[in-house]
Amino acid sequence: MRVAALSDFVSNLSLSRFGFQPRAREEKKHDIASLCQALVSRQGEISCFVIAEEILSQWDRLSGEERIALLAQLSSALSPDRRRILDLIKKVEADQSDHNFHLLHRASEPRFQELLRRLNHARNGTQRLVRMREELIDALPAHPELSDLDKDFSHLFASWFNRGFLELKPITWRTPASVLEKIIQYEAVHAISDWDDLRRRIEPADRRLFAFFHPQMPDEPLIFVEVALTASTPARIGDVLSPKRAAISPEEATTAVFYSISNCQRGLKGISFGNFLIKQVVEELKRELPQLKTFVTLSPVPDFARWLDKIGKGESEGLTEAQIAVLSQTAMPAWQHDNAVVAAVEPVLKKAAARYFASAKDRNGKPFDSVARFHLGNGARLENIHVMADLSEKGISRSRGIMVNYLYKTDDIEKNHEDYAERGKVVVSDAVRSLLR
Amino acid sequence: MRVAALSDFVSNLSLSRFGFQPRAREEKKHDIASLCQALVSRQGEISCFVIAEEILSQWDRLSGEERIALLAQLSSALSPDRRRILDLIKKVEADQSDHNFHLLHRASEPRFQELLRRLNHARNGTQRLVRMREELIDALPAHPELSDLDKDFSHLFASWFNRGFLELKPITWRTPASVLEKIIQYEAVHAISDWDDLRRRIEPADRRLFAFFHPQMPDEPLIFVEVALTASTPARIGDVLSPKRAAISPEEATTAVFYSISNCQRGLKGISFGNFLIKQVVEELKRELPQLKTFVTLSPVPDFARWLDKIGKGESEGLTEAQIAVLSQTAMPAWQHDNAVVAAVEPVLKKAAARYFASAKDRNGKPFDSVARFHLGNGARLENIHVMADLSEKGISRSRGIMVNYLYKTDDIEKNHEDYAERGKVVVSDAVRSLLR
Amino acid sequence: MRVAALSDFVSNLSLSRFGFQPRAREEKKHDIASLCQALVSRQGEISCFVIAEEILSQWDRLSGEERIALLAQLSSALSPDRRRILDLIKKVEADQSDHNFHLLHRASEPRFQELLRRLNHARNGTQRLVRMREELIDALPAHPELSDLDKDFSHLFASWFNRGFLELKPITWRTPASVLEKIIQYEAVHAISDWDDLRRRIEPADRRLFAFFHPQMPDEPLIFVEVALTASTPARIGDVLSPKRAAISPEEATTAVFYSISNCQRGLKGISFGNFLIKQVVEELKRELPQLKTFVTLSPVPDFARWLDKIGKGESEGLTEAQIAVLSQTAMPAWQHDNAVVAAVEPVLKKAAARYFASAKDRNGKPFDSVARFHLGNGARLENIHVMADLSEKGISRSRGIMVNYLYKTDDIEKNHEDYAERGKVVVSDAVRSLLR
Amino acid sequence: MRVAALSDFVSNLSLSRFGFQPRAREEKKHDIASLCQALVSRQGEISCFVIAEEILSQWDRLSGEERIALLAQLSSALSPDRRRILDLIKKVEADQSDHNFHLLHRASEPRFQELLRRLNHARNGTQRLVRMREELIDALPAHPELSDLDKDFSHLFASWFNRGFLELKPITWRTPASVLEKIIQYEAVHAISDWDDLRRRIEPADRRLFAFFHPQMPDEPLIFVEVALTASTPARIGDVLSPKRAAISPEEATTAVFYSISNCQRGLKGISFGNFLIKQVVEELKRELPQLKTFVTLSPVPDFARWLDKIGKGESEGLTEAQIAVLSQTAMPAWQHDNAVVAAVEPVLKKAAARYFASAKDRNGKPFDSVARFHLGNGARLENIHVMADLSEKGISRSRGIMVNYLYKTDDIEKNHEDYAERGKVVVSDAVRSLLR
Repeated sequence: MRVAALSDFVSNLSLSRFGFQPRAREEKKHDIASLCQALVSRQGEISCFVIAEEILSQWDRLSGEERIALLAQLSSALSPDRRRILDLIKKVEADQSDHNFHLLHRASEPRFQELLRRLNHARNGTQRLVRMREELIDALPAHPELSDLDKDFSHLFASWFNRGFLELKPITWRTPASVLEKIIQYEAVHAISDWDDLRRRIEPADRRLFAFFHPQMPDEPLIFVEVALTASTPARIGDVLSPKRAAISPEEATTAVFYSISNCQRGLKGISFGNFLIKQVVEELKRELPQLKTFVTLSPVPDFARWLDKIGKGESEGLTEAQIAVLSQTAMPAWQHDNAVVAAVEPVLKKAAARYFASAKDRNGKPFDSVARFHLGNGARLENIHVMADLSEKGISRSRGIMVNYLYKTDDIEKNHEDYAERGKVVVSDAVRSLLR
Repeated sequence: MRVAALSDFVSNLSLSRFGFQPRAREEKKHDIASLCQALVSRQGEISCFVIAEEILSQWDRLSGEERIALLAQLSSALSPDRRRILDLIKKVEADQSDHNFHLLHRASEPRFQELLRRLNHARNGTQRLVRMREELIDALPAHPELSDLDKDFSHLFASWFNRGFLELKPITWRTPASVLEKIIQYEAVHAISDWDDLRRRIEPADRRLFAFFHPQMPDEPLIFVEVALTASTPARIGDVLSPKRAAISPEEATTAVFYSISNCQRGLKGISFGNFLIKQVVEELKRELPQLKTFVTLSPVPDFARWLDKIGKGESEGLTEAQIAVLSQTAMPAWQHDNAVVAAVEPVLKKAAARYFASAKDRNGKPFDSVARFHLGNGARLENIHVMADLSEKGISRSRGIMVNYLYKTDDIEKNHEDYAERGKVVVSDAVRSLLR
Repeated sequence: MRVAALSDFVSNLSLSRFGFQPRAREEKKHDIASLCQALVSRQGEISCFVIAEEILSQWDRLSGEERIALLAQLSSALSPDRRRILDLIKKVEADQSDHNFHLLHRASEPRFQELLRRLNHARNGTQRLVRMREELIDALPAHPELSDLDKDFSHLFASWFNRGFLELKPITWRTPASVLEKIIQYEAVHAISDWDDLRRRIEPADRRLFAFFHPQMPDEPLIFVEVALTASTPARIGDVLSPKRAAISPEEATTAVFYSISNCQRGLKGISFGNFLIKQVVEELKRELPQLKTFVTLSPVPDFARWLDKIGKGESEGLTEAQIAVLSQTAMPAWQHDNAVVAAVEPVLKKAAARYFASAKDRNGKPFDSVARFHLGNGARLENIHVMADLSEKGISRSRGIMVNYLYKTDDIEKNHEDYAERGKVVVSDAVRSLLR
Repeated sequence: MRVAALSDFVSNLSLSRFGFQPRAREEKKHDIASLCQALVSRQGEISCFVIAEEILSQWDRLSGEERIALLAQLSSALSPDRRRILDLIKKVEADQSDHNFHLLHRASEPRFQELLRRLNHARNGTQRLVRMREELIDALPAHPELSDLDKDFSHLFASWFNRGFLELKPITWRTPASVLEKIIQYEAVHAISDWDDLRRRIEPADRRLFAFFHPQMPDEPLIFVEVALTASTPARIGDVLSPKRAAISPEEATTAVFYSISNCQRGLKGISFGNFLIKQVVEELKRELPQLKTFVTLSPVPDFARWLDKIGKGESEGLTEAQIAVLSQTAMPAWQHDNAVVAAVEPVLKKAAARYFASAKDRNGKPFDSVARFHLGNGARLENIHVMADLSEKGISRSRGIMVNYLYKTDDIEKNHEDYAERGKVVVSDAVRSLLR
């Protein structure tokens, strides 16, 4: 039996009831800011509810610029009570008791966090706040002054999207269309062209797709992973995605290939789920198909081309000048269709990639490649390097056609993770290591 | 299709894997405290998960005293970084920018909050943390030094149990037994004696029961309200609960009577749901049965006897000495079975009750009666006072047999609420007012 | 908690266990027929189950001709025990007691019905039997000798698909894709071109789609109806299906338009659901949107062109020769795009249509138009005739662009139905009647 | 989204609309019989629906005698068309074609079956018809003339409750109370005393309960089996049901004990489910707990005392006179509490029981014991005989305290079944066989 949603019943209550006067269109901005002030200070729960709804529906009608201006305005309007903080600072200086530190912490909470908590009462509040942060994130480069506000969002979201609240769900051809269309939309690695393409990724007996959901956003996946069950570790994405391939029986599979992982909610940036997603899916697959032996990714190397470009400009990284010259051919258009070029390039490209993983670092001393950072950070091991493995436009332009397998071996994950996290060690297979000689 | 729970797969990972050595039984306390330290500082997500499980299962084996000692120990061990705060205080004193206040706030967050967020990853983490706070609350009178810790819990719970995350569900005879047994257990107003008694409150066509749930605790109601659909406003709880009464058709009902509201989770003290529960149930019932006209409670007056006792000790409150003498008979055992006493007492009791509601205040200047504070604070109006209305042991000992109706009239709720909240006004019906003359 | 399906556990039992020897490929037909014999006579329930699975999977591998040959073979092989019937005939002739008639009935049941009942135990048995009958129906014209077998199917299906077992379900954008693709596939009136077209018919707030399902075939709709909520009765299908139209709020709608009804399972021919579907959907919509006043179809007139062709060949039906000449223009290609022709044709076409409904009969004396037979038989009234209302290829070729509204008025349905069923009366509105003068 | 049930919308249609006049109370019987006639002959589906509802609600108000009288009246009133049958008999005699036999079969169908099919359209029709047959079954001994009518019911039910339509569901403490109370009510072997007793049978980790359901009767189990997961085969029901026993972890169990099987619907007599239930539960448990090795019952021997009584009256069955004298003590009250008697009786009782299973037959030459017939017919083997195993009142009075284990060994089931079904062989273990020497 469905019951009225928390919000159904305020639809016929109007704001005027609570002493708010509607204003002329041009004063809208002023209006919504003072509604936010009221929302934070009000006690009556119903009026709060009505005001939260009104704020969010006014927000929907604001232009992008008006929204950013409003956030900036709220950022200072809803800062904590400075006088009280300064008093407490005095207290702390006089007596550094735990209690005084607690008081200081509580007093210094930006009231903007309370605003967010109360806006969450509105219909689809959580999802609308996630969207709000998306816009904030987009505006950050131009408005660095909003970064504290962004931290308020992210602090709250980290609490609300605590992993203890997330649900892992399999996505199948029996999943509601309203969710499936989001999968099409959010796939960020190997684009899904249409419903038939989607069906090929979830309906065959040897395909799986899993996603994390938050109970308050049942139609919105947070992150998902696509899995192919195979008889061996694939070396080319084309083998996995070919519309013509024959499905195998899940019982015959020995290997689960994670060939695509997509974060769905830009507004949840910084709240990481992927780590756990893979590990939980590994366990789920083991439970269903105990004969599976190998859990491995087939991953792009999205920053490889950018690194090669730098190399080309003079950084050698243990590559000879001749090798660098060969590699430079991969910057030419359509090189991948010229067999002679490919033959020349292949061995060098593979060696260069091994070097890339072994020694290229970002400014924090972490691996240069973002996908490598993710999987190595999870405790996976770099297992294989495949050249000419992704000939799609994106595959060529970003990875020069290279793909790699990261191996998830349950017994080693924690050790690998620690070696990586604490000693910066990149764990690689013998096969990869031999390329470095 | 059910998938492996977030926690299934760590069951065979042992702590020793992450460098933790099992200790002898007697050092248990030390062990768990250092596990908590590790949990807060660790990066690896799987090790975190295993540690969280271990902490909570060790907790289950601690004695009550050991638990409180551990909390006290953690309270100081997981306080924020003082040096950093003191540095930031200097910064703030030098430059009172919004940004510096933000930094100060974030730096001063007790690390105990992070501990709670990470413990929440464990199996049934949320529920186990709610239970943990129950014990903390029980210990507070003897350990006032733990009150800041309690505020950490309550801050986090307020965020996790944000009303935007709660679900209203009808409880019926088709509800799982595992939930129904909780209803029996948690009913706090008119005890449910057994499954047959429960059935009488939910199965007849003219009975309803609604509860709020959190998605992470699907078997645990947070608060519930019992409703009788009637043809008139009842004056006696016996009429509502009689096993012999004949059910009416819901379509004949004109009145919905909220005759029992119970909070279920002591560990969520201070996070209020009741307010909204009633209002949402009103809307839900209107939707289902548009002919309902009156929404009213049949409520105990739980602090009335205590107030009468004080009166008897000399405070007059507008009552004559003769009246006070009459009232004093209600403190005698079994007075309610003596018709002569009842006849003498009835009119005086009713008058005294009216006075009680009109003028008896607690130390904060709010109504003396806790149930009155709740409903008047919700915007309800005190509608009727009934004597000899609850002759149960509890009804006599706490309310001297009195019950009252609070009326929820949608159009007046907000105004009543404001009159009460801002001006302390107790809104009463003409009938009650006439008793005051 | 999902449990093993009735069929999961026989997957590893082989037929050889029950004394069946696998045969060479060319003897397959013989094999399956004797399996059917065995299935009907066996007692052991597990062997039955295994045999039923085997029969149906062999069936899947037969060619169309082999299947029909098998059915013909079974038809005589599984006929009842003639000797026993003849004995009972003697008994009946001697003593015409109720009991003897009962015995005769039971003895004369074709054993083929028992075969069907036991095949139903197999995985998806019901659905596979429905598919089997589809092929039988297709073969009937060439194999009239199989019509008794078809009656066996239809007798059993009438019992299994008893309306008491069917479920009405709303189909929305939240329905599983596996069901939605069936809607696309089965739409028989106004084809759904792709997923976007489907979405336009179910996602907007003013659109509804309802289907009947059988519990054993949860992914297979039996019949469905598409509904548009509108502010007035539409005269053109283009207005309903236009991708550019603006949705209205359901609360503003006064009219529910049933603009497409499709039977999905050819194998259930003769087991009618449509009748009840419309009436139940009317009630469902009234419950959800009490303000709806008018329930009306927008229907094709699929046999009109065929009738006009006959007219053109000399039957006058009250139309003048001049009128018939005008009408003959609608048999020319692309006439609908020639404004002069349209202007001349419109009034005559409308008059001719009115006549068509009033007097054209099929060989059973029922209305010539199959859709008219359906709705008038349901108790609806012919309300309006619209020319140039469906300019799609199908609309022109079958209905000469005409569409009509049938009105479902709850108060009149039974009377209309009886007037039609018992007196053959075609109930029409005043507007239509005036066209007949 | 719930939609209106098939029946909701006729609630405000009255029979008078269809030309039926309400009659005076005393003519009720006449009225309902003619309603039944009308229901069978009517075409209009809505009127059918209304009439079906009216018939069933009048039925509810009839006395038991009136109901039986009505059934008898309908039995002849709704017999098939004799004239048509006699004509077809002539046709058959002239031409014994398959087609003519088909015609004869269809013509001879009692119209009472059509009545049942149409009554099934009413609200909860299926369940109400099952209840109707219960009363018919109860009346059969006194009214043997109704046995053909009973066969009509049973023919239809066999079709509707075809195993392909049934669902196996686990019953747990999370099952709705409305279903659980049926389990308490229907348990027929070891009575469940109250909700706490029920909970002990379903909540511990080493207990399971499975039931078959029909989709149209979701609150009514058809048959259920109670299972204990144990570390060894139990010899006493007290060990299984003791409230004090400690639960074991399911992973430690090696044995699944089916200790109680109850049919729930007397109205479905003759439509057997138990056979398949056990086999499906075996497979389900193997899937969940692959380490389980032994599937065994702990069963009563309900006809043993009756057989012993016959023995006592002179039939020897290979028992010596002395042994029979010893056994006769078990007919005395409270013998089971007299240690001396028990010591003397035990070995003889065990031997006698072995003999009972080996040679006691019912009038059809099947095993005398009804429970033995069930399990041996399923292909189980008689594994152990336990004396002093069920000391409950029922256990003593019917089984003289004896219980037995029947072993379900997947590999042998079919062979055992055939040995039993075709050669009447009672398959026993070596242990039992040694008792026969």
